[in-house]
Amino acid sequence: MSRPLYSHSFTLRLGDTDAAGVIYFARLLEHAHEAYEAFLAAAGRPLQDWTGRGIQIPVVHAEADFLSPMTLGQAIRVELRPGALGRSSFRLDYRFRDTAGEPLARASTVHVAMRAAAAVELPPDLRELLDTG
Amino acid sequence: MSRPLYSHSFTLRLGDTDAAGVIYFARLLEHAHEAYEAFLAAAGRPLQDWTGRGIQIPVVHAEADFLSPMTLGQAIRVELRPGALGRSSFRLDYRFRDTAGEPLARASTVHVAMRAAAAVELPPDLRELLDTG
Amino acid sequence: MSRPLYSHSFTLRLGDTDAAGVIYFARLLEHAHEAYEAFLAAAGRPLQDWTGRGIQIPVVHAEADFLSPMTLGQAIRVELRPGALGRSSFRLDYRFRDTAGEPLARASTVHVAMRAAAAVELPPDLRELLDTG
Amino acid sequence: MSRPLYSHSFTLRLGDTDAAGVIYFARLLEHAHEAYEAFLAAAGRPLQDWTGRGIQIPVVHAEADFLSPMTLGQAIRVELRPGALGRSSFRLDYRFRDTAGEPLARASTVHVAMRAAAAVELPPDLRELLDTG
Repeated sequence: MSRPLYSHSFTLRLGDTDAAGVIYFARLLEHAHEAYEAFLAAAGRPLQDWTGRGIQIPVVHAEADFLSPMTLGQAIRVELRPGALGRSSFRLDYRFRDTAGEPLARASTVHVAMRAAAAVELPPDLRELLDTG
Repeated sequence: MSRPLYSHSFTLRLGDTDAAGVIYFARLLEHAHEAYEAFLAAAGRPLQDWTGRGIQIPVVHAEADFLSPMTLGQAIRVELRPGALGRSSFRLDYRFRDTAGEPLARASTVHVAMRAAAAVELPPDLRELLDTG
Repeated sequence: MSRPLYSHSFTLRLGDTDAAGVIYFARLLEHAHEAYEAFLAAAGRPLQDWTGRGIQIPVVHAEADFLSPMTLGQAIRVELRPGALGRSSFRLDYRFRDTAGEPLARASTVHVAMRAAAAVELPPDLRELLDTG
Repeated sequence: MSRPLYSHSFTLRLGDTDAAGVIYFARLLEHAHEAYEAFLAAAGRPLQDWTGRGIQIPVVHAEADFLSPMTLGQAIRVELRPGALGRSSFRLDYRFRDTAGEPLARASTVHVAMRAAAAVELPPDLRELLDTG
Protein backbone atom coordinates (compact mmCIF):
# COMPACT_ATOMS: atom_id res chain seq x y z
CA MET A 1 0.00 0.00 0.00
CA SER A 2 1.10 3.57 -0.73
CA ARG A 3 2.54 5.77 1.99
CA PRO A 4 -0.16 7.77 3.80
CA LEU A 5 -0.63 11.41 2.80
CA TYR A 6 -1.14 12.18 6.48
CA SER A 7 -1.24 10.37 9.82
CA HIS A 8 -3.36 11.52 12.75
CA SER A 9 -3.57 10.11 16.26
CA PHE A 10 -6.33 10.28 18.84
CA THR A 11 -7.51 8.55 21.99
CA LEU A 12 -10.98 7.06 22.18
CA ARG A 13 -12.93 9.08 24.76
CA LEU A 14 -16.02 8.25 26.83
CA GLY A 15 -18.19 10.37 24.54
CA ASP A 16 -17.09 8.17 21.60
CA THR A 17 -18.37 4.97 23.24
CA ASP A 18 -21.83 3.51 23.72
CA ALA A 19 -23.55 1.14 26.14
CA ALA A 20 -22.11 -1.86 24.25
CA GLY A 21 -18.72 -0.77 25.64
CA VAL A 22 -17.12 0.02 22.28
CA ILE A 23 -17.02 2.93 19.83
CA TYR A 24 -20.43 4.16 18.68
CA PHE A 25 -20.13 3.43 14.96
CA ALA A 26 -20.98 6.92 13.65
CA ARG A 27 -18.19 8.42 15.76
CA LEU A 28 -15.62 6.61 13.62
CA LEU A 29 -16.66 8.76 10.66
CA GLU A 30 -16.39 11.85 12.84
CA HIS A 31 -12.79 10.87 13.64
CA ALA A 32 -12.15 10.31 9.93
CA HIS A 33 -13.38 13.83 9.19
CA GLU A 34 -11.21 15.21 12.01
CA ALA A 35 -8.17 13.52 10.42
CA TYR A 36 -9.10 15.25 7.13
CA GLU A 37 -9.42 18.59 8.94
CA ALA A 38 -6.07 18.02 10.69
CA PHE A 39 -4.48 17.22 7.31
CA LEU A 40 -5.84 20.42 5.73
CA ALA A 41 -4.64 22.51 8.68
CA ALA A 42 -1.19 20.88 8.65
CA ALA A 43 -0.97 21.67 4.91
CA GLY A 44 -1.75 25.34 5.61
CA ARG A 45 -5.23 25.16 4.02
CA PRO A 46 -7.61 24.74 6.96
CA LEU A 47 -11.24 23.91 6.19
CA GLN A 48 -12.49 27.31 7.36
CA ASP A 49 -10.38 29.04 4.66
CA TRP A 50 -12.38 27.47 1.83
CA THR A 51 -15.61 28.83 3.29
CA GLY A 52 -14.06 32.30 3.34
CA ARG A 53 -13.57 31.91 -0.42
CA GLY A 54 -17.27 30.99 -0.90
CA ILE A 55 -16.56 27.31 -1.41
CA GLN A 56 -18.30 24.49 0.42
CA ILE A 57 -16.87 20.97 0.20
CA PRO A 58 -19.66 18.76 1.60
CA VAL A 59 -19.40 15.02 2.09
CA VAL A 60 -21.61 13.35 -0.51
CA HIS A 61 -20.68 9.76 0.35
CA ALA A 62 -19.26 8.12 3.46
CA GLU A 63 -18.61 4.52 4.40
CA ALA A 64 -16.92 2.55 7.16
CA ASP A 65 -15.95 -1.04 7.91
CA PHE A 66 -15.29 -2.19 11.46
CA LEU A 67 -12.64 -4.89 11.78
CA SER A 68 -11.88 -5.04 15.49
CA PRO A 69 -13.54 -3.49 18.59
CA MET A 70 -12.27 -0.06 19.66
CA THR A 71 -12.60 0.61 23.38
CA LEU A 72 -12.40 3.45 25.90
CA GLY A 73 -8.92 4.93 26.27
CA GLN A 74 -7.49 3.14 23.22
CA ALA A 75 -4.77 5.01 21.30
CA ILE A 76 -5.63 5.00 17.60
CA ARG A 77 -3.76 6.14 14.50
CA VAL A 78 -5.59 7.16 11.32
CA GLU A 79 -3.74 7.03 8.00
CA LEU A 80 -5.26 9.21 5.30
CA ARG A 81 -4.74 8.46 1.61
CA PRO A 82 -6.27 10.23 -1.39
CA GLY A 83 -8.49 8.15 -3.68
CA ALA A 84 -10.16 9.01 -7.00
CA LEU A 85 -9.66 12.70 -7.85
CA GLY A 86 -12.31 14.14 -10.22
CA ARG A 87 -12.92 17.57 -11.68
CA SER A 88 -15.14 18.67 -8.78
CA SER A 89 -14.74 15.80 -6.37
CA PHE A 90 -12.22 13.77 -4.43
CA ARG A 91 -12.20 10.65 -2.33
CA LEU A 92 -10.22 10.09 0.87
CA ASP A 93 -9.49 6.66 2.33
CA TYR A 94 -8.75 6.19 6.04
CA ARG A 95 -7.14 3.24 7.82
CA PHE A 96 -7.48 3.08 11.60
CA ARG A 97 -4.77 1.09 13.42
CA ASP A 98 -3.84 0.34 17.03
CA THR A 99 -0.40 1.18 18.41
CA ALA A 100 0.95 -2.19 17.19
CA GLY A 101 -0.17 -1.34 13.64
CA GLU A 102 -3.03 -3.84 13.64
CA PRO A 103 -6.03 -2.72 11.53
CA LEU A 104 -9.12 -1.64 13.48
CA ALA A 105 -11.32 -0.08 10.81
CA ARG A 106 -11.43 1.45 7.34
CA ALA A 107 -13.43 4.42 6.12
CA SER A 108 -13.83 6.55 3.02
CA THR A 109 -15.39 9.92 2.33
CA VAL A 110 -16.21 11.54 -1.03
CA HIS A 111 -16.37 15.32 -1.13
CA VAL A 112 -17.65 17.69 -3.84
CA ALA A 113 -16.52 21.30 -4.13
CA MET A 114 -19.49 23.62 -4.59
CA ARG A 115 -19.94 27.36 -5.02
CA ALA A 116 -23.39 28.37 -3.83
CA ALA A 117 -25.24 25.21 -4.83
CA ALA A 118 -23.35 24.31 -8.01
CA ALA A 119 -20.42 21.91 -8.30
CA VAL A 120 -17.24 23.78 -9.24
CA GLU A 121 -13.73 22.76 -10.17
CA LEU A 122 -11.55 21.80 -7.22
CA PRO A 123 -9.45 24.82 -6.14
CA PRO A 124 -5.94 24.25 -7.66
CA ASP A 125 -4.22 24.33 -4.29
CA LEU A 126 -6.61 21.73 -2.86
CA ARG A 127 -6.09 19.56 -5.95
CA GLU A 128 -2.33 19.87 -5.55
CA LEU A 129 -2.56 18.69 -1.92
CA LEU A 130 -4.38 15.55 -2.97
CA ASP A 131 -2.75 14.71 -6.29
CA THR A 132 -0.06 12.21 -5.42
CA GLY A 133 -0.29 10.27 -8.72
CA MET B 1 -44.47 23.86 40.84
CA SER B 2 -45.97 25.80 37.92
CA ARG B 3 -47.44 23.99 34.91
CA PRO B 4 -44.80 23.38 32.21
CA LEU B 5 -44.78 25.73 29.22
CA TYR B 6 -44.13 22.69 27.04
CA SER B 7 -43.60 18.93 27.39
CA HIS B 8 -41.42 16.92 25.05
CA SER B 9 -40.84 13.16 24.97
CA PHE B 10 -37.95 11.15 23.62
CA THR B 11 -36.39 7.70 23.91
CA LEU B 12 -32.77 7.31 24.96
CA ARG B 13 -30.87 5.92 21.96
CA LEU B 14 -27.58 4.02 21.71
CA GLY B 15 -25.80 7.15 20.50
CA ASP B 16 -26.85 8.88 23.76
CA THR B 17 -25.15 6.28 25.95
CA ASP B 18 -21.54 5.63 26.89
CA ALA B 19 -19.45 2.67 28.02
CA ALA B 20 -20.70 3.12 31.60
CA GLY B 21 -24.06 1.91 30.27
CA VAL B 22 -25.97 5.13 30.97
CA ILE B 23 -26.53 8.50 29.26
CA TYR B 24 -23.33 10.37 28.36
CA PHE B 25 -23.81 13.49 30.48
CA ALA B 26 -23.41 16.10 27.74
CA ARG B 27 -26.20 14.46 25.73
CA LEU B 28 -28.71 15.47 28.39
CA LEU B 29 -28.09 19.11 27.51
CA GLU B 30 -28.53 18.27 23.84
CA HIS B 31 -31.95 16.79 24.66
CA ALA B 32 -32.77 19.92 26.69
CA HIS B 33 -31.96 22.07 23.65
CA GLU B 34 -34.06 19.79 21.43
CA ALA B 35 -37.01 20.31 23.80
CA TYR B 36 -36.49 24.07 23.44
CA GLU B 37 -36.38 23.71 19.63
CA ALA B 38 -39.54 21.57 19.71
CA PHE B 39 -41.25 24.20 21.88
CA LEU B 40 -40.35 27.02 19.46
CA ALA B 41 -41.54 24.98 16.47
CA ALA B 42 -44.81 24.04 18.21
CA ALA B 43 -45.34 27.74 18.96
CA GLY B 44 -44.91 28.60 15.27
CA ARG B 45 -41.54 30.35 15.83
CA PRO B 46 -38.93 27.71 14.89
CA LEU B 47 -35.30 28.46 15.70
CA GLN B 48 -34.34 28.83 12.04
CA ASP B 49 -36.79 31.76 11.66
CA TRP B 50 -34.80 33.95 14.06
CA THR B 51 -31.66 33.43 12.03
CA GLY B 52 -33.55 34.57 8.92
CA ARG B 53 -34.24 37.84 10.78
CA GLY B 54 -30.53 38.31 11.56
CA ILE B 55 -30.89 37.30 15.19
CA GLN B 56 -28.75 34.70 16.94
CA ILE B 57 -29.82 33.41 20.36
CA PRO B 58 -26.73 31.56 21.65
CA VAL B 59 -26.59 29.64 24.92
CA VAL B 60 -24.38 31.61 27.33
CA HIS B 61 -24.88 29.35 30.34
CA ALA B 62 -25.94 25.73 30.73
CA GLU B 63 -26.14 23.42 33.71
CA ALA B 64 -27.45 19.97 34.55
CA ASP B 65 -27.98 17.81 37.62
CA PHE B 66 -28.27 14.04 37.34
CA LEU B 67 -30.62 12.45 39.88
CA SER B 68 -31.11 8.90 38.61
CA PRO B 69 -29.41 6.84 35.88
CA MET B 70 -30.94 7.02 32.39
CA THR B 71 -30.45 3.90 30.30
CA LEU B 72 -30.75 2.66 26.72
CA GLY B 73 -34.32 2.54 25.46
CA GLN B 74 -35.77 4.49 28.37
CA ALA B 75 -38.80 6.70 27.60
CA ILE B 76 -38.18 10.19 28.99
CA ARG B 77 -40.38 13.27 29.28
CA VAL B 78 -38.88 16.77 29.46
CA GLU B 79 -40.90 19.58 31.00
CA LEU B 80 -39.81 23.07 29.95
CA ARG B 81 -40.50 26.12 32.12
CA PRO B 82 -39.36 29.71 31.56
CA GLY B 83 -37.10 31.23 34.24
CA ALA B 84 -35.75 34.76 34.61
CA LEU B 85 -36.66 36.91 31.59
CA GLY B 86 -34.34 39.88 31.02
CA ARG B 87 -34.20 42.62 28.40
CA SER B 88 -31.88 40.60 26.10
CA SER B 89 -31.83 37.24 27.83
CA PHE B 90 -34.01 34.43 29.10
CA ARG B 91 -33.57 31.30 31.14
CA LEU B 92 -35.26 27.95 30.55
CA ASP B 93 -35.55 25.22 33.17
CA TYR B 94 -35.99 21.59 32.22
CA ARG B 95 -37.17 18.65 34.33
CA PHE B 96 -36.55 15.15 32.99
CA ARG B 97 -38.93 12.43 34.27
CA ASP B 98 -39.53 8.75 33.62
CA THR B 99 -42.94 7.44 32.55
CA ALA B 100 -44.01 7.15 36.21
CA GLY B 101 -43.21 10.84 36.72
CA GLU B 102 -40.14 10.18 38.85
CA PRO B 103 -37.42 12.84 38.44
CA LEU B 104 -34.32 11.79 36.46
CA ALA B 105 -32.47 15.05 35.92
CA ARG B 106 -32.76 18.84 35.88
CA ALA B 107 -31.15 21.29 33.48
CA SER B 108 -31.19 25.00 32.71
CA THR B 109 -30.03 27.07 29.77
CA VAL B 110 -29.60 30.85 29.56
CA HIS B 111 -29.84 32.43 26.10
CA VAL B 112 -28.98 35.94 24.89
CA ALA B 113 -30.47 37.49 21.77
CA MET B 114 -27.80 39.10 19.63
CA ARG B 115 -27.74 40.96 16.34
CA ALA B 116 -24.35 40.61 14.71
CA ALA B 117 -22.24 40.51 17.87
CA ALA B 118 -24.25 42.89 20.06
CA ALA B 119 -26.91 41.93 22.57
CA VAL B 120 -30.33 43.16 21.43
CA GLU B 121 -33.78 43.29 22.99
CA LEU B 122 -35.65 40.00 22.84
CA PRO B 123 -37.96 39.96 19.80
CA PRO B 124 -41.48 40.76 21.13
CA ASP B 125 -43.00 37.52 19.86
CA LEU B 126 -40.26 35.47 21.54
CA ARG B 127 -40.76 37.44 24.78
CA GLU B 128 -44.48 36.79 24.58
CA LEU B 129 -43.92 33.05 24.23
CA LEU B 130 -41.85 32.99 27.39
CA ASP B 131 -43.60 35.57 29.56
CA THR B 132 -45.94 33.54 31.71
CA GLY B 133 -45.76 35.81 34.76
CA MET C 1 -39.48 -0.39 -4.59
CA SER C 2 -40.83 -2.62 -1.82
CA ARG C 3 -42.94 -1.21 1.00
CA PRO C 4 -40.79 -0.08 3.96
CA LEU C 5 -40.59 -2.41 6.95
CA TYR C 6 -40.80 0.68 9.15
CA SER C 7 -41.06 4.46 8.82
CA HIS C 8 -39.63 6.88 11.34
CA SER C 9 -39.86 10.67 11.44
CA PHE C 10 -37.62 13.23 13.06
CA THR C 11 -36.81 16.93 12.89
CA LEU C 12 -33.28 18.10 12.21
CA ARG C 13 -32.04 19.82 15.38
CA LEU C 14 -29.27 22.38 15.93
CA GLY C 15 -26.98 19.68 17.34
CA ASP C 16 -27.31 17.80 14.03
CA THR C 17 -25.99 20.72 11.99
CA ASP C 18 -22.52 22.13 11.43
CA ALA C 19 -21.00 25.48 10.50
CA ALA C 20 -21.74 24.82 6.82
CA GLY C 21 -25.41 25.27 7.75
CA VAL C 22 -26.51 21.72 6.91
CA ILE C 23 -26.51 18.31 8.59
CA TYR C 24 -23.10 17.14 9.84
CA PHE C 25 -22.68 14.02 7.70
CA ALA C 26 -22.02 11.51 10.51
CA ARG C 27 -25.29 12.51 12.21
CA LEU C 28 -27.23 11.03 9.30
CA LEU C 29 -25.95 7.59 10.30
CA GLU C 30 -26.92 8.27 13.89
CA HIS C 31 -30.47 9.01 12.70
CA ALA C 32 -30.40 5.80 10.64
CA HIS C 33 -29.47 3.82 13.77
CA GLU C 34 -32.22 5.58 15.73
CA ALA C 35 -34.74 4.49 13.09
CA TYR C 36 -33.47 0.91 13.54
CA GLU C 37 -33.83 1.23 17.33
CA ALA C 38 -37.36 2.66 16.92
CA PHE C 39 -38.24 -0.25 14.61
CA LEU C 40 -37.01 -2.85 17.13
CA ALA C 41 -38.92 -1.14 19.97
CA ALA C 42 -42.11 -0.89 17.90
CA ALA C 43 -41.75 -4.63 17.12
CA GLY C 44 -41.53 -5.39 20.84
CA ARG C 45 -37.84 -6.38 20.67
CA PRO C 46 -35.96 -3.27 21.83
CA LEU C 47 -32.18 -3.21 21.40
CA GLN C 48 -31.54 -3.40 25.16
CA ASP C 49 -33.34 -6.79 25.31
CA TRP C 50 -30.70 -8.50 23.15
CA THR C 51 -27.95 -7.35 25.48
CA GLY C 52 -29.87 -8.89 28.39
CA ARG C 53 -29.67 -12.19 26.49
CA GLY C 54 -25.87 -11.86 26.11
CA ILE C 55 -26.06 -10.90 22.45
CA GLN C 56 -24.37 -7.90 20.90
CA ILE C 57 -25.32 -6.83 17.38
CA PRO C 58 -22.57 -4.35 16.38
CA VAL C 59 -22.51 -2.42 13.13
CA VAL C 60 -19.70 -3.85 10.97
CA HIS C 61 -20.36 -1.71 7.91
CA ALA C 62 -22.11 1.60 7.37
CA GLU C 63 -22.49 3.85 4.37
CA ALA C 64 -24.41 6.96 3.36
CA ASP C 65 -25.07 8.99 0.22
CA PHE C 66 -26.19 12.59 0.43
CA LEU C 67 -28.55 13.70 -2.33
CA SER C 68 -29.92 17.03 -1.17
CA PRO C 69 -28.99 19.39 1.70
CA MET C 70 -30.81 18.84 5.01
CA THR C 71 -31.20 21.98 7.10
CA LEU C 72 -32.13 23.09 10.61
CA GLY C 73 -35.75 22.43 11.51
CA GLN C 74 -36.46 20.25 8.47
CA ALA C 75 -39.00 17.44 8.97
CA ILE C 76 -37.51 14.19 7.67
CA ARG C 77 -38.95 10.70 7.20
CA VAL C 78 -36.71 7.60 7.21
CA GLU C 79 -37.93 4.44 5.51
CA LEU C 80 -36.23 1.26 6.71
CA ARG C 81 -36.03 -1.84 4.52
CA PRO C 82 -34.22 -5.11 5.22
CA GLY C 83 -31.43 -6.09 2.82
CA ALA C 84 -29.33 -9.28 2.61
CA LEU C 85 -30.09 -11.60 5.54
CA GLY C 86 -27.24 -14.02 6.39
CA ARG C 87 -26.77 -16.68 9.04
CA SER C 88 -25.21 -14.23 11.54
CA SER C 89 -25.70 -10.93 9.80
CA PHE C 90 -28.27 -8.62 8.28
CA ARG C 91 -28.31 -5.44 6.26
CA LEU C 92 -30.72 -2.55 6.62
CA ASP C 93 -31.31 0.09 3.97
CA TYR C 94 -32.60 3.54 4.83
CA ARG C 95 -34.15 6.19 2.58
CA PHE C 96 -34.45 9.72 3.93
CA ARG C 97 -37.21 11.88 2.38
CA ASP C 98 -38.64 15.34 2.94
CA THR C 99 -42.35 15.90 3.63
CA ALA C 100 -43.07 15.99 -0.11
CA GLY C 101 -41.46 12.55 -0.50
CA GLU C 102 -38.40 13.89 -2.31
CA PRO C 103 -35.21 11.86 -1.60
CA LEU C 104 -32.65 13.52 0.66
CA ALA C 105 -30.21 10.71 1.44
CA ARG C 106 -29.69 6.96 1.48
CA ALA C 107 -27.86 4.87 4.05
CA SER C 108 -27.16 1.23 4.86
CA THR C 109 -25.90 -0.59 7.92
CA VAL C 110 -24.69 -4.20 8.22
CA HIS C 111 -24.96 -5.82 11.66
CA VAL C 112 -23.50 -9.09 12.98
CA ALA C 113 -24.97 -10.95 15.97
CA MET C 114 -22.22 -11.98 18.40
CA ARG C 115 -22.14 -13.81 21.70
CA ALA C 116 -19.09 -12.76 23.68
CA ALA C 117 -16.75 -12.16 20.75
CA ALA C 118 -17.97 -14.89 18.37
CA ALA C 119 -20.52 -14.48 15.60
CA VAL C 120 -23.68 -16.44 16.38
CA GLU C 121 -26.83 -17.27 14.45
CA LEU C 122 -29.35 -14.45 14.37
CA PRO C 123 -31.94 -14.93 17.14
CA PRO C 124 -35.04 -16.46 15.44
CA ASP C 125 -37.32 -13.63 16.53
CA LEU C 126 -34.94 -11.02 15.13
CA ARG C 127 -34.67 -13.00 11.87
CA GLU C 128 -38.46 -13.17 11.66
CA LEU C 129 -38.73 -9.39 12.04
CA LEU C 130 -36.40 -8.87 9.12
CA ASP C 131 -37.33 -11.73 6.78
CA THR C 132 -39.84 -10.22 4.41
CA GLY C 133 -38.88 -12.37 1.42
CA MET D 1 -5.56 31.92 40.34
CA SER D 2 -3.82 28.64 41.22
CA ARG D 3 -1.66 26.83 38.69
CA PRO D 4 -3.69 24.34 36.62
CA LEU D 5 -3.46 20.67 37.60
CA TYR D 6 -3.39 19.85 33.90
CA SER D 7 -3.54 21.63 30.53
CA HIS D 8 -5.05 20.09 27.43
CA SER D 9 -5.21 21.46 23.89
CA PHE D 10 -7.59 20.74 21.06
CA THR D 11 -8.76 22.23 17.79
CA LEU D 12 -12.45 22.95 17.22
CA ARG D 13 -13.65 20.58 14.47
CA LEU D 14 -16.61 20.76 12.09
CA GLY D 15 -18.50 18.21 14.18
CA ASP D 16 -18.21 20.55 17.18
CA THR D 17 -19.96 23.41 15.38
CA ASP D 18 -23.58 24.12 14.53
CA ALA D 19 -25.50 26.10 11.92
CA ALA D 20 -24.94 29.30 13.92
CA GLY D 21 -21.28 28.98 12.89
CA VAL D 22 -19.89 28.50 16.40
CA ILE D 23 -19.43 25.66 18.87
CA TYR D 24 -22.60 23.72 19.70
CA PHE D 25 -22.84 24.45 23.43
CA ALA D 26 -23.06 20.85 24.68
CA ARG D 27 -19.81 20.01 22.88
CA LEU D 28 -17.91 22.30 25.25
CA LEU D 29 -18.77 19.95 28.11
CA GLU D 30 -17.64 17.01 26.00
CA HIS D 31 -14.26 18.72 25.56
CA ALA D 32 -14.16 19.38 29.32
CA HIS D 33 -14.66 15.67 29.97
CA GLU D 34 -11.97 14.82 27.40
CA ALA D 35 -9.54 17.08 29.27
CA TYR D 36 -10.41 15.17 32.48
CA GLU D 37 -9.81 11.85 30.67
CA ALA D 38 -6.50 13.13 29.28
CA PHE D 39 -5.48 14.22 32.79
CA LEU D 40 -6.28 10.78 34.26
CA ALA D 41 -4.36 9.03 31.47
CA ALA D 42 -1.35 11.35 31.83
CA ALA D 43 -1.38 10.59 35.58
CA GLY D 44 -1.27 6.85 34.85
CA ARG D 45 -4.84 6.27 36.08
CA PRO D 46 -6.96 6.19 32.90
CA LEU D 47 -10.74 6.23 33.27
CA GLN D 48 -11.11 2.65 32.02
CA ASP D 49 -8.98 1.39 34.95
CA TRP D 50 -11.56 2.45 37.53
CA THR D 51 -14.25 0.47 35.75
CA GLY D 52 -12.00 -2.60 35.90
CA ARG D 53 -12.01 -2.14 39.68
CA GLY D 54 -15.82 -2.05 39.77
CA ILE D 55 -15.97 1.70 40.32
CA GLN D 56 -18.06 4.10 38.28
CA ILE D 57 -17.46 7.84 38.61
CA PRO D 58 -20.50 9.43 36.92
CA VAL D 59 -20.99 13.14 36.40
CA VAL D 60 -23.78 14.29 38.74
CA HIS D 61 -23.54 17.99 37.93
CA ALA D 62 -22.17 19.93 34.98
CA GLU D 63 -22.22 23.59 34.07
CA ALA D 64 -20.72 25.90 31.50
CA ASP D 65 -20.46 29.62 30.82
CA PHE D 66 -19.71 30.94 27.34
CA LEU D 67 -17.67 34.14 27.26
CA SER D 68 -16.56 34.49 23.64
CA PRO D 69 -17.54 32.66 20.42
CA MET D 70 -15.47 29.60 19.50
CA THR D 71 -15.25 28.92 15.79
CA LEU D 72 -14.20 26.21 13.33
CA GLY D 73 -10.48 25.50 13.35
CA GLN D 74 -9.77 27.52 16.49
CA ALA D 75 -6.93 26.25 18.71
CA ILE D 76 -8.16 26.04 22.30
CA ARG D 77 -6.42 25.28 25.59
CA VAL D 78 -8.30 23.86 28.58
CA GLU D 79 -6.89 24.35 32.06
CA LEU D 80 -8.17 21.85 34.63
CA ARG D 81 -8.20 22.67 38.36
CA PRO D 82 -9.62 20.58 41.20
CA GLY D 83 -12.45 22.11 43.23
CA ALA D 84 -14.25 20.86 46.37
CA LEU D 85 -13.06 17.36 47.30
CA GLY D 86 -15.57 15.37 49.38
CA ARG D 87 -15.59 11.87 50.82
CA SER D 88 -17.21 10.35 47.71
CA SER D 89 -17.18 13.26 45.31
CA PHE D 90 -14.96 15.81 43.62
CA ARG D 91 -15.40 18.89 41.50
CA LEU D 92 -13.26 19.90 38.53
CA ASP D 93 -13.11 23.42 37.11
CA TYR D 94 -12.13 24.09 33.50
CA ARG D 95 -11.00 27.32 31.87
CA PHE D 96 -10.97 27.46 28.07
CA ARG D 97 -8.58 29.98 26.50
CA ASP D 98 -7.47 30.95 23.01
CA THR D 99 -3.80 30.89 21.98
CA ALA D 100 -3.34 34.45 23.32
CA GLY D 101 -4.61 33.34 26.73
CA GLU D 102 -7.93 35.19 26.41
CA PRO D 103 -10.81 33.43 28.22
CA LEU D 104 -13.39 31.73 25.97
CA ALA D 105 -15.47 29.69 28.40
CA ARG D 106 -15.58 28.16 31.88
CA ALA D 107 -17.03 24.81 32.90
CA SER D 108 -17.30 22.61 35.98
CA THR D 109 -18.16 18.97 36.54
CA VAL D 110 -18.96 17.19 39.81
CA HIS D 111 -18.31 13.44 39.94
CA VAL D 112 -19.34 10.83 42.53
CA ALA D 113 -17.50 7.53 42.97
CA MET D 114 -19.94 4.63 43.14
CA ARG D 115 -19.65 0.89 43.56
CA ALA D 116 -22.63 -0.82 41.99
CA ALA D 117 -25.23 1.85 42.77
CA ALA D 118 -23.90 3.10 46.13
CA ALA D 119 -21.61 6.07 46.68
CA VAL D 120 -18.20 4.91 47.96
CA GLU D 121 -15.12 6.68 49.25
CA LEU D 122 -12.90 8.10 46.53
CA PRO D 123 -10.11 5.63 45.70
CA PRO D 124 -7.00 6.91 47.56
CA ASP D 125 -4.92 7.23 44.40
CA LEU D 126 -7.65 9.27 42.70
CA ARG D 127 -7.94 11.48 45.80
CA GLU D 128 -4.20 11.96 45.79
CA LEU D 129 -4.27 13.10 42.16
CA LEU D 130 -6.83 15.76 43.00
CA ASP D 131 -5.78 16.88 46.45
CA THR D 132 -3.60 19.89 45.85
CA GLY D 133 -4.57 21.73 49.04
